[in-house]
Formats: sequence, C-alpha cells, structure tokens
Amino acid sequence: MARKRNNKQKKSNWRRRAKPGDAPGQILIDPSAISTKIHVIGLGNNYVEKEITDINELDAITASCDRLWIDVVGLGSESTLRNLANLFQLHPLVIEDVVNVYQRAKVEEFEDGLFVVARMIDGTDPATTEQISIYLKGNVLISFQERPGDCWDPLRQRLRQKRGKVANTDLDYLLYSLLDAVIDSYFPVLEDVVELVDTLELDIISEVRIEQMHRIHELRGQLLSLRRSIRPHREMINELVRDSISEVHPETRVHLRDCYDHVIQVIDTVDTYREVTSDLRDFYLSSINNNMNEVMKLLTIISTIFIPLSFIAGVYGMNFDPEVSTWNMPELKWMFGYPLSLTLMAGVAGLLLIYFRRRRWI
Amino acid sequence: MARKRNNKQKKSNWRRRAKPGDAPGQILIDPSAISTKIHVIGLGNNYVEKEITDINELDAITASCDRLWIDVVGLGSESTLRNLANLFQLHPLVIEDVVNVYQRAKVEEFEDGLFVVARMIDGTDPATTEQISIYLKGNVLISFQERPGDCWDPLRQRLRQKRGKVANTDLDYLLYSLLDAVIDSYFPVLEDVVELVDTLELDIISEVRIEQMHRIHELRGQLLSLRRSIRPHREMINELVRDSISEVHPETRVHLRDCYDHVIQVIDTVDTYREVTSDLRDFYLSSINNNMNEVMKLLTIISTIFIPLSFIAGVYGMNFDPEVSTWNMPELKWMFGYPLSLTLMAGVAGLLLIYFRRRRWI
Amino acid sequence: MARKRNNKQKKSNWRRRAKPGDAPGQILIDPSAISTKIHVIGLGNNYVEKEITDINELDAITASCDRLWIDVVGLGSESTLRNLANLFQLHPLVIEDVVNVYQRAKVEEFEDGLFVVARMIDGTDPATTEQISIYLKGNVLISFQERPGDCWDPLRQRLRQKRGKVANTDLDYLLYSLLDAVIDSYFPVLEDVVELVDTLELDIISEVRIEQMHRIHELRGQLLSLRRSIRPHREMINELVRDSISEVHPETRVHLRDCYDHVIQVIDTVDTYREVTSDLRDFYLSSINNNMNEVMKLLTIISTIFIPLSFIAGVYGMNFDPEVSTWNMPELKWMFGYPLSLTLMAGVAGLLLIYFRRRRWI
Amino acid sequence: MARKRNNKQKKSNWRRRAKPGDAPGQILIDPSAISTKIHVIGLGNNYVEKEITDINELDAITASCDRLWIDVVGLGSESTLRNLANLFQLHPLVIEDVVNVYQRAKVEEFEDGLFVVARMIDGTDPATTEQISIYLKGNVLISFQERPGDCWDPLRQRLRQKRGKVANTDLDYLLYSLLDAVIDSYFPVLEDVVELVDTLELDIISEVRIEQMHRIHELRGQLLSLRRSIRPHREMINELVRDSISEVHPETRVHLRDCYDHVIQVIDTVDTYREVTSDLRDFYLSSINNNMNEVMKLLTIISTIFIPLSFIAGVYGMNFDPEVSTWNMPELKWMFGYPLSLTLMAGVAGLLLIYFRRRRWI
Amino acid sequence: MARKRNNKQKKSNWRRRAKPGDAPGQILIDPSAISTKIHVIGLGNNYVEKEITDINELDAITASCDRLWIDVVGLGSESTLRNLANLFQLHPLVIEDVVNVYQRAKVEEFEDGLFVVARMIDGTDPATTEQISIYLKGNVLISFQERPGDCWDPLRQRLRQKRGKVANTDLDYLLYSLLDAVIDSYFPVLEDVVELVDTLELDIISEVRIEQMHRIHELRGQLLSLRRSIRPHREMINELVRDSISEVHPETRVHLRDCYDHVIQVIDTVDTYREVTSDLRDFYLSSINNNMNEVMKLLTIISTIFIPLSFIAGVYGMNFDPEVSTWNMPELKWMFGYPLSLTLMAGVAGLLLIYFRRRRWI
Repeated sequence: MARKRNNKQKKSNWRRRAKPGDAPGQILIDPSAISTKIHVIGLGNNYVEKEITDINELDAITASCDRLWIDVVGLGSESTLRNLANLFQLHPLVIEDVVNVYQRAKVEEFEDGLFVVARMIDGTDPATTEQISIYLKGNVLISFQERPGDCWDPLRQRLRQKRGKVANTDLDYLLYSLLDAVIDSYFPVLEDVVELVDTLELDIISEVRIEQMHRIHELRGQLLSLRRSIRPHREMINELVRDSISEVHPETRVHLRDCYDHVIQVIDTVDTYREVTSDLRDFYLSSINNNMNEVMKLLTIISTIFIPLSFIAGVYGMNFDPEVSTWNMPELKWMFGYPLSLTLMAGVAGLLLIYFRRRRWI
Repeated sequence: MARKRNNKQKKSNWRRRAKPGDAPGQILIDPSAISTKIHVIGLGNNYVEKEITDINELDAITASCDRLWIDVVGLGSESTLRNLANLFQLHPLVIEDVVNVYQRAKVEEFEDGLFVVARMIDGTDPATTEQISIYLKGNVLISFQERPGDCWDPLRQRLRQKRGKVANTDLDYLLYSLLDAVIDSYFPVLEDVVELVDTLELDIISEVRIEQMHRIHELRGQLLSLRRSIRPHREMINELVRDSISEVHPETRVHLRDCYDHVIQVIDTVDTYREVTSDLRDFYLSSINNNMNEVMKLLTIISTIFIPLSFIAGVYGMNFDPEVSTWNMPELKWMFGYPLSLTLMAGVAGLLLIYFRRRRWI
Repeated sequence: MARKRNNKQKKSNWRRRAKPGDAPGQILIDPSAISTKIHVIGLGNNYVEKEITDINELDAITASCDRLWIDVVGLGSESTLRNLANLFQLHPLVIEDVVNVYQRAKVEEFEDGLFVVARMIDGTDPATTEQISIYLKGNVLISFQERPGDCWDPLRQRLRQKRGKVANTDLDYLLYSLLDAVIDSYFPVLEDVVELVDTLELDIISEVRIEQMHRIHELRGQLLSLRRSIRPHREMINELVRDSISEVHPETRVHLRDCYDHVIQVIDTVDTYREVTSDLRDFYLSSINNNMNEVMKLLTIISTIFIPLSFIAGVYGMNFDPEVSTWNMPELKWMFGYPLSLTLMAGVAGLLLIYFRRRRWI
Repeated sequence: MARKRNNKQKKSNWRRRAKPGDAPGQILIDPSAISTKIHVIGLGNNYVEKEITDINELDAITASCDRLWIDVVGLGSESTLRNLANLFQLHPLVIEDVVNVYQRAKVEEFEDGLFVVARMIDGTDPATTEQISIYLKGNVLISFQERPGDCWDPLRQRLRQKRGKVANTDLDYLLYSLLDAVIDSYFPVLEDVVELVDTLELDIISEVRIEQMHRIHELRGQLLSLRRSIRPHREMINELVRDSISEVHPETRVHLRDCYDHVIQVIDTVDTYREVTSDLRDFYLSSINNNMNEVMKLLTIISTIFIPLSFIAGVYGMNFDPEVSTWNMPELKWMFGYPLSLTLMAGVAGLLLIYFRRRRWI
Repeated sequence: MARKRNNKQKKSNWRRRAKPGDAPGQILIDPSAISTKIHVIGLGNNYVEKEITDINELDAITASCDRLWIDVVGLGSESTLRNLANLFQLHPLVIEDVVNVYQRAKVEEFEDGLFVVARMIDGTDPATTEQISIYLKGNVLISFQERPGDCWDPLRQRLRQKRGKVANTDLDYLLYSLLDAVIDSYFPVLEDVVELVDTLELDIISEVRIEQMHRIHELRGQLLSLRRSIRPHREMINELVRDSISEVHPETRVHLRDCYDHVIQVIDTVDTYREVTSDLRDFYLSSINNNMNEVMKLLTIISTIFIPLSFIAGVYGMNFDPEVSTWNMPELKWMFGYPLSLTLMAGVAGLLLIYFRRRRWI
C-alpha cells in the first residue's frame, strides 16, 4: 500500500503541462491546486504579521516596514497570482514556473530580481516533494508553496522574536535561511531510509526471506527518488555561492557554502546507500541461492541413495521362476537370501554416504 | 507488432548516405522523400499566409512584410530545394544536412546565418523522430520538415491572431518558439513511457509473469531511443544560450534558458527511468527465480518423501521364499506384518516432514 | 571462422614494436609490409597523375604543378621511405609513427608541418583497420597507406575532372576530404552491425536459441573494436577544428566541424548499440532461463504426479501373506480391490493436478 | 558481532542534527559527548605544555610563547566551547560544525582564519571515524577532537624535544603535520583490509565455502566506508595546495602536495580493491555455481542410470500369468531368464555410461 | 602458484610505511632492500663509465665531463643515500619518496630541480613493478632503482657509442629516453596478457571448461594491476608536456608527446581488454549454464519417460488376487496381457517423445 501511494506520486510528476507549441509564460492553473492564501511578514523597525486576501492590503505593510516576506501558500487562485505578478512586475516565465510545480531546483537571475526553485521533502515519503519557488527583488521576498505546512516555523518564530541575524539583516539572508531549512528537510527522511537499509542488512545477514527482496527494491526506489530531487540543488546553490549575483552579499555566501556542504552530504549519502543496497541485493541473491542449493542438494542426495536400493529390491521382486532352472534367481531359495539382500542395500547406501562425505557434499 | 515497426524505424536510421569519398555539400534526395511544399508566413505590419509552389512568389511577400517564416514540408523535390538554397545563398553543407535526415541535434553558426537541427517526436512512438532543420538569416527563417504534421499549430494560430510576443518581435524569438515546441513534443511520449513503467512495476509486484520481461525490454529500448534523440539537444540549446551568437538577443536567451531546463528535465527523467527499469528487471528476475525455486522445492520435497516409502514397499515386494528358511522375509508371515509396514512408512514420512519443517523448507 | 580472422587481427595489433630502450625515431620496417609504391597527383593549372618509383621523378611534377599529393602505398621499402623523409625533412618521429602502423588517431603540429594519423575501416570486418598517416606541409600533402585499396577513388575522380572545391583550393581542404572519406568508411560497416543487432533482436524475441548467444558476443566484440578505432578521432578532429593550427583555413574548419559531427554520430551509435546488445543479452538470458524453467517445471510435475501412484502400486505389490491373518493386505482379496486401487490412484493424480493448477504451476 | 558494531556506527552518523529551520551557527551539544579537556602547547623560545580547565589560564602561556597549539578533546562542555569561541572570535558556523561531528572533510577560508575539517580513522574499524576540526588563525592553532586518543603522539614528542621543522616554524606547518598524520591513519586500516581481501582470494581459489560470501560482503562494506571517509580529503587538500590561501606558506604547500599524493594513493587503492572484490564476488558465485552443478550433474546421472534398470526389474515383477498363454512373460520360464535380465540391465547401464562419457558429462 | 606470487606482491605494496605522525622527510630504509651500488656515466667531450662506492669519486668525473648520469641501484645503504642527498642538496621529501618504494607515478617541480617517479614492469608478471625515481638538476641526472636489471641497456649502448641524440644533448632528453623505455616496458607484458585473452576467447568458444573461469579471473586481476600501475603515468607525462617546466626543452616536449601517446595506448588497451574479459566472463557463464541446462534437460527427459512406464509395470506387479473376482486384475489372465502391457508402455513412451519433440525439447 505504501508502494501504491509512492507510485501514484511518481506518475503525477508527469501529468499536466502546457501543450507543445503553447505560448511561453502562460499561467496554467492546475485544477486540483489549493486556493491561494497570502501570509505577509513585515520586518525592520516594526514587525507586522498578517494573513491577507487582497493584494492591496500590502501597501499598508510596505509603508510601515523596511522589508517584506510574502509567503504565498496554494497555487489555485489565478487572479491573485496574476495580480501579484503585475504588482511586482514578475517575468512571465517566473510565474509560469511557479504554477507548473514539476520543476527541478534551479536559480535564474533576472534583470531586477533573483528567482530560485527548490524542492522540499513533504512529510515522510521520500518520493513526495513540494516545489518551493522564491523570488527576491530588493526589499521584497516572495515565496510560493503548493500546500500549507512547511519546515519554516522555527524561522518564523525567530522573526517574531526579532531574534537572530535573519530578523535584522537584508533579505538575501532570509533567502539563505529558507533554502537551508528546505535542504535540512531531507535529513530526517534520509536518516529513516538509511536506518531501514542498515536494519535490513542485519536482518538479511541473520536470515534470508523472500519479503526482503521487496524491501530492497522499495528502498532503492526511494533512494533514487531522493537523488533525483536533491541533485539539482547542488548546481543551484553552487551558482548562488560562486557567481557574482548582486542580490547575494558576500557574508551570506559564507552561509550558503555551509548549505552547499549539506547538499553534498545528502547526495554523498544517497549515492553511498545506492551502492550499499546494490551490494545488499547481490548478497541477498547469493544467500537465497545458497539456501536453495542446500535444499536441492540434500534432497537430491536422499533420492540418489534410495534409487539404487529400490533397484535392488526391484530385482528381487522379479518373478523369474526358480523352479525352472537353478539359474533363475537362486538367491530367493538361499537360507540367508533376504538378510544378504538387506546387507547389500545397507552396503550400497553406506558406500554412497562415504563417497558423498569424501566429496564434501554432506 | 509494435516492436516490428519500432525496429524497422531504427534500421532506417542507417540506410542511405553519401558514399565515402563523395564530395561534401551534395544534395542527395532520398527517393522515398515526400515532395516539397512551401508554406510561407509573412509577419510585420501585414500578415500574409500562403502555400506557394514557385519560389518566385516569395518576392511579393517579401515586399509587403517585414519578416518571413518559410516552412518547407517534404524533402523530395530537388529543384525546389536547390532554388531555395540559391535564393538565400545557403552554405552547401546546410542543404546537405537538411536532406540527409539522420543528423543529431546541433547548432552551427555561419558567417551570415544560424543553422539549427533538432529532432521532433513524431506521433506516439518514442523511436520515431523527424528531423527539423531551421536556418535563420536576418529577417528570414526557413524551417525544413520531413513530413506534414507538426506540433506548431498553436504557434501558427498565435501568429495569425497577431497574439503574443512571437508575432511582434524579431525572428530569433520565433526560432526559440519552434525549438520550445519541439522539446515539448517529448513530454507526452515520455509521460506515456513513464506511466507504463510505473504500471508495470505495480503489476510485477502483485504477480510475476513471463510477458513482463518483454515489456521491460521494450520499455528499456524506448527509453534508450528517447535518450539518444534528446541528449544532443542539451549541448545545442546550451550553445544558443551561452555563446555570444549575434542572431540571438539577450531577452530570447532568457527564454532559451527555460527551454534548456526542459531538456534537462527530459534527460533526467529518461536516465532515472533507465535506472528504474534496471532495478525492475533485477526485481523481476529475483521474483521469477523465487517462484521457480518455490515450485521446484515443493515438488522435490514430495518426491523425497515418497522415495523411501516406495523403497520399503519394494523391499516387501521381493520374492525371497519364506518357506526356505525363517530368515527369509519372516515379516510376510507375521500377523500384523502389513499394518506394521504401513506404520513404518507413515513414520518415515512423518519424520521427514518434521525434519523439513524444522529446517524451514516447508 | 569469421571469429578466427577477427581474433588474429586483434592480436596482430600488438606484435611488432621497438624494444624498450631503443632510440626514438627509428624506421623499423615490418618484414611482412607490402613494398612501397608512390602515386603522385599534381594539382593547379596543370593536372599530372603518375605512378613513380624514383623519388627524383618528383622534381618534374613539382616544377609544373602548384600543389602535390603524394600517396605512398605499402610501407615495406625502407630506402624509398628514407629518401622521402630526407627530401621533405620529415621529423624522425613522424616516419617512425608512419611505419609503426598500430597508432591511435591523433594530430601533431610540427614547426613546419601538420601530421595526422587516422584509422580507415578495411573492407567489411569492423576489427580490421588500416593506419592512414598524412603529412601536410605547405603545398605538399603526403599520405601513407598500409595496403592498396582505399575509399578515395571518388575523390581522385573529382581531382581528375578538376571538379569540386577540392581540385581548386589549398591542400588543407584535400586533408579534410581525405579525413572525411576515412570517417565515412565507418558508416557502411556500422550499418551492417546495427542491422545484424536489430535482426538478432527480432529473432530472439520470436524464438530463443543457443547460437544467438554467440552472435551477441561476437557483435559486442565488433562494437568494441569499432569504438576503440573511432574514439580517438573525436579528439583528433576536435583539435583540428578548435586549435588555431595555421595550416587549416577557417573555411575548412567549417567542413571539419561537419566531419566532427559524423564522428560523434558513429561514437553515439556504437555506444547506444553496446547498450542495446547489453539489454539484449540480459533479455536472451532471461528468455533461455524462462524456457529452461518451463521444461524443468513440466517434467518435474509429471514426475511428482507419478511418484505417489507408483508408491501405491508398490504397496499392493508387497508380498505379505493374506493367508496368515486378515490383517495382511485384505484388499488383495476384496472383490473390487483392483478397481478401487486404480480409483485411488486416479484420485491422487486428480487432486495433485487440481492443486498444481490452483497454484498456477500448470 | 563485528558487523553489528559496524552497522551501529553507520547509523549513528545520521542521528542528531539541528531541526530544519533552526538558526544557523547554534551550538547543539550532543548529550553523549565527552566532557571537554584542553591541552595547550606553547611553542617558540619557551616550550610550555599544560592541561588547563579555565580558558583564562591561556593568558599566561600566550605571554611567554610565540605560538600556541590548543588541542580541545571532547565536545561535551558547552560553556568551555562558547568561551573559547568568544575568546578567539570564531565564526558561529565554525563552532556549529565543530560540535556537529558528522561533517565531510572540507576547508573554509574566513576573513581572519582558516577552518579545516578532516576525519581520522579511529582504531581498527574502517567504519569508525572521528571528526578532527582545526582552526588556524595567526599564531594560534585550535584543534578539536571527539574523543581522547589520536595519532599525534610522535608529533607531540618532536615538539617537546624541539626536534624537526614543526617545532621551529609557523603554525601552517603544524597544520600540515596534523593533517598528514590524519591521512596516514588510513594506511594501517587499509593495509588490513587489503590483506584480508588478498587472503580471502587465495582462500576462495583453493576452496569455496559459504562463509566467504559474508566476508566479501563485509569487506566491500568496509571499503565503501573508507572511500566515503577519505574521498572528500582529496578536494580539501587540493584546495590547500592550489588556492592562494594566505595562511599557507609556499614551502608548506610542497609538503601538502606530498600529503595529497597519499590521499590519492588511498583512494586509488580503495577503488582498485572495490573492483577486486567485485571480481572476487563474481568468481565466488561462478565457483559455487560450478560446484553445485557438479553435484547435481553427478547425482542426476546416477538417477538416470538406475531408472531404466528399475523399469526392467519392474517389468519382470509383473504378475501376468505365464500359465494362461505362452505370450504371457515366457521369459520367466526360460532357463537363463534371470541371468539374461541381469545382462540386459548391465548392458543398458553400460550403454548409458558410454553415452554420457562420449558427451563428456562424466 | 603463479597466483600466489602475484598476491604476495600485491600485499607487499602495503607493508612498510612511516607511522602516522612521524616527521616527514625521514629516510626509512626497508630492511630487505638491496645494498646500494652507484653506476656513473659521464657524458660530453669525454665518455666515462664507472661503478663507484664512495661518493667522493664523483668529483673526478664531474671535472672531466659535461653531464652526469648517476644510476643508483638498490636502496639498502642509508649512509650512501644520505651522502648523495647532501651532496646534491635533495629536498628531504625527495629522498623519502625514493626509499618508500610504493609511490604512484608523479612529477614534482622543486625550486632547483625536477623529481619524477615512474613504475617499471619487472620481468613478465604484470603485478610486479619496480619504482624508478629520477631527479634532474642542471647537468646531473640521478636515477634510483630498487633492484639490478632494467630496460635501459640499449640506451647505455648508445651512450657508450656516442650514438643518437641522447648522447649529445641536454639531460632532459636523457630523462625522456629513460621514461620512454619505462613506458615501453609495459608493451611486452601487455601483449602477453592480450594474447592470453584472445587465446582464451577462442578456447571458450570451442569448448567450455571450468578451469577457464580461473584464467579469466586471473587475467582480469592482471589487467587491473596493469591499469593501476600505468594510469598515473598519463597525468605525470602530461604535466611534463603541457606545463612550462623550465628543465624540459620544447624539442624534448615533442618527444614526450609521443611518449604520452604510448601511455594512452596502453591505458586504452587495458580498458578495452577489461571490457573484453568482462564480456568473456558473461559469455563463459552463459555457455556453462547452457551446457548444464542441456545435461539436466536430457537427463530429466529420460527420467520423465521412464517414470510412467515404471508405474504401469508397478500396477501389474500388484498382488490383487484374480481368483477372488473377475474385477481383480483380469489382465493378468488375458492371453495377450503381457504383450499388451508392453505395447501400452511403448505407446506411452512414444507419445511422450512426440510431445517433447513437438515442444522442441529434444
């Protein structure tokens, strides 16, 4: 059942898109998208936090605050998004990428702003990710999420309490903090997978069972999903660190470097564990094969011992008439014919056993 | 049958070519090529759309329009192509590449023009692609297709209605729009393959069947075809984005960057699904192996239990004469000889069953 | 037999070489090399074509022609080669590489000339290649072949008829034409291999046979040979295109770029088909395994059904004496003993068949 | 049991971390961390070595010595670490990385110092590594270890005796010496693994046993652990060598180059031995398969020979009544019926044996 | 036995090293090293060749000759090496690398000299290599070998006869000549391995045997050893060619480029043959599997045919009493009972044979 959800998710990565040949920069709202809510946090001397529905309410906050974080949750309301795009003069491609939620992580520099796409792990399923789009333009940072629920609550708490650097410095540091939290959202999920692999390894070493094959296959699929999601972040954050993007201060770059290290660590672990599961699969197959061979060997040995014995019994079950001539099965008339035949059988069995043992088969 | 067509297609990729040593720049018309039709769209203040047969008809359109899109469909008419090449002074290598329709995607800059080759997915078969050659030179863009039918109808619609940027700006944006549509033509086909892989995975997990092996093999082949077609586009579009090609405006480059992301996304998905099918194949093989082992094990166990029993029956089927001596099969004369022998058999069978169960074989 | 020739060829790639520690630049003639013939073509206002044996005959041609193509066929005559080297002041390493015919494709720029090594496919065996060395120095181009017979006859025809650009321009264009023909010599051979793979795939899908394994192995070997021969050409031609080599005019570079595309196409196809054959091998192995399993399963099922039946027959073949007691095999005396035993057997067989069918084994 | 420890270790690599969204630069002490001890060595004209508990004791040593090596062992005392960070104005990210002991090896340059993370092999288990963090800032070098016990005792000895370059030059040389010792700590462990692989190979070649599969799997896991630990050092030391980091003198770079060679050598060996174990696993599987096949073949041959013999015996065990007609088993009444039947059996067995031998099965 | 030596060698690559934490630049003499002999060749106007034991004897030769080649054979005499190091002011790391004979090939430029490490194939075992260290400083070239016996005798001969460029030019050409001979020492060994692989392939194609698996495994190991030894030379020689190392003249670089081609050729061949052996192993396994399947199939078919026949014989061996009722085995009393039963058996066997043939199993 867990698999089923997993697969559905994968498929949905590929459903809806503009038709080939459609104009670029279109806003194609996914009919199943959640309706949009806007959560605004004003920073600076004043701290303002407000859930707004009308874009025009922004004016008041802009007036009283130095910096603005507009967090847009849900991408279902076309008019709201369109108004927002107009207000902040977002490039059409930006808003197209925002609503088309199957982008790889990337960074794009526009003339008057910086556009970043990242993918956040949603909950505990490595295959379920949510697209996070962030647009930074001067004193305004707009973030777009697909669904309510994210990993930024500790960050909001710090902003509310005017605690930490993030509350008192330029918005590029907020951008870093958001990305850092997104990257860090991979760790718990990855730790779970890693622990499952390690547990499975111990389990396979102690006893091989057929269900383990399903587990290995599933874990490999999850690691593949994780790798596919996290890998583009490397290039994305690297571009933010290395390129001379004017929106990002040098001091923030030091922090992004740290964030980059985390991405590398995730990729590194995923790759290592892909190899671990690959080794594990080979080990599993060898083990199950060995077990099967052991069974077959023992059973075949049993058959092989009894077949000559049955043959001897068969011979003395023949109905040649000893009355006709002394050549015909005289053993049947011997005094010790029966015990001798049993002894013969025991002897054959014994010799076979000795031979098998010599060849180390038993 | 689907396979057959598939394979024929692959083979045809390799049939016709100039002989080694032939002069470069020759126009070698494929005898099976469709005869050429020219569809001209004039843009600018006037909008003209016309199907022409005589090259000279172009003059009138050129006079009344600022920009020209000449869409050449079918590559079978040598004289038409030759006239076109002369009129626009195309480099001989360009026209050679146009008619030799088995090129990889590429971009080439000539002194006075830009030549781009791309491959469009034709219909629903991942292995069938059509070569799209585009030559951009000042205010004229010439596109060459192998067959009628393409993914550009929405684009033409926009041109007709003078809608969108494409209708009102330089031709490099039209070039981008054409390429974008070509790249987007990969998505539906890829989505189909991906969905088939996902369905197949669920199918294999629920029950293993031999036909699934054919499906895996076929899907792997389709993914390979897709990768081979799409991969050269990465380099091609990257060159258009990065290199300072004079024909491409900076603003168009922003759009091509988006197009580049799409190419990467297709390649990424194809690569991921190559790995998924590889994992799936291993899983399939393990499953079918396990099933087979189960069958063999059970059957062997049945044989192994009956073989000693048959042996006992064989022993008491021997014809040693109990009359001759009391040593000869006295059991035959016992009152409970028969029931005892049956009990013995039951005992042996029981012990074997217990042993097999202890070793977890049944 | 085809294999045998194939393998001999591979081995010969590795026989003769200078001893470690020998002086570089030595001319070590292979004793089995064909004796040298020189075919000179003078280009320019006059066209001269002559088979010469004495180097001194060159003077006359040089006097009357602007450009010289000296085609040296057969590398067995040490003195001729030495004279040639002296006349044109070839670097000792050049002439060493020319006679040591197991070089990888490469380009080397010397102070006063350009030295190119390429490998031409010889005939239809992908494993048999011939080293082509070309030295270009001002108005003289010297080409060296191991054996008579090449892919340059159409080119010579064009020179004779003073047709095409190659007859009327600088020798770097001739160099390009020669290389282009060499690269194109890979296509027919590659097409053959590709067609064999495709045919084999259809064949395996319709019916698996043991010989197919040999075919797969052989085709993989041929693709490997092709890859090994063609791959160094990529770097070689790339150097000619990109590096500012003074001997190569910019216009020729445009043509070499085309040649580069062909190399990439060959490499690409070889790599793709290595993967195709790898998939095919896996498919073959799965198929043969499945077939084997089917056979074994059915046969084992037959055995398994008859074993209990034989056991029953064995029981009633026992010789316990029904006369001694009523406990001893009273069935033998029953009126319907025999029909009942047969019914019992049929019943057991039926139950087993039903069980096997339930478990989907038959 | 060794495996168990091994796996626990791996898991622990992934346990504790800051929650996603937490502020960067936090000091999150691992509750199980060992309490901190500080070992100071003052270098220069005076040599001072002291175990201190109060940071303030540093002042006295600073006064009397030119250079300071502060070796912090155990990362459990938050206040001590915090004081240290304040005293030397360490960047918050530095101290966060120090206590979060699951970093990859890396180097980071800060405005006023150089921060290096390395991983030391701890004891003899390739999977157990300890994070070594080093901060170099002018005349102070601070090193952080997780646990007491390291590979630096010979180095300390040299410092005490004012022997060697390390005692008399700038601290970047001490940094190099520390890193060199850390890298060298991989050699004994790697040598052990390599020797185990070589021994195992000889063992498998002489006789295949099932336990060997476990050994291969375990060794592959250890090599993977080693690779994962050592690989990031390559980039780290390369940055120290190549980049113009002001803290590192050119002369020290010569030494670091040597250190870099060692890293490459370790990585190289690990990679080679991953391949060796991979080959070994294939060899093991082929061997065990061959053995199994041998067993099965011989046993099946035995069965196959006896089955027709038993059939013949079965025929002559039939109870057709020879009295009724001369057609009913007249052989039973023949004078040499029994010997003839035995001869027939021997003949059949002999023919089968000859046939099997002809086909090279025995 | 060959394997044993092979493995011992591999292990010895890893035994002796400085302890972690030891000072760099130490001379740690291997106790088993051969005692040092110094062979000096003075070049220039005078030619001097002398075996010396005392370093001071060098002075006389230095006085009379322009250039000096000091060939140090055996690394067992610490004092001699130390004196040499002092005399020519070698960097401590140089002399450490010289005696620690398990280095990868590399080049290091020091302020006043060039240090090169290469690995020479020693004899015919691909796994046995000898470290060659060369230090070039102005007019002195010092080479260090582990053991007497090398591939430089033809070179010495040329020096003695003042033949060739090497005798009459600067020492960088001697350096090249030494390296060229070392690289060339790989060819005969590689040719042997390649020929063994090719022979083995033909052998496996004609008949599969179990010993071949050992051969494949051994050859793969040898190719791996070769690759590991040769691969670092690529980078090493590339650095000599490309980097502007002042000790190497441009003209020598042309020769080193040739040497580089040879290295690439060796690596290329090793890689190709790793793939060939990999294909070969798969082919071997398929073949042996096919053979085994053939055996098992035939034997199982034999069993399967006889099992129903034996069952029929068993039925008519039952002792139901025909006297009791006409239902009890009336066949026994039929006139043609026995011939009919035999016919029945023949019929069953025939039907089975026809069925098996229909299904293509025989």
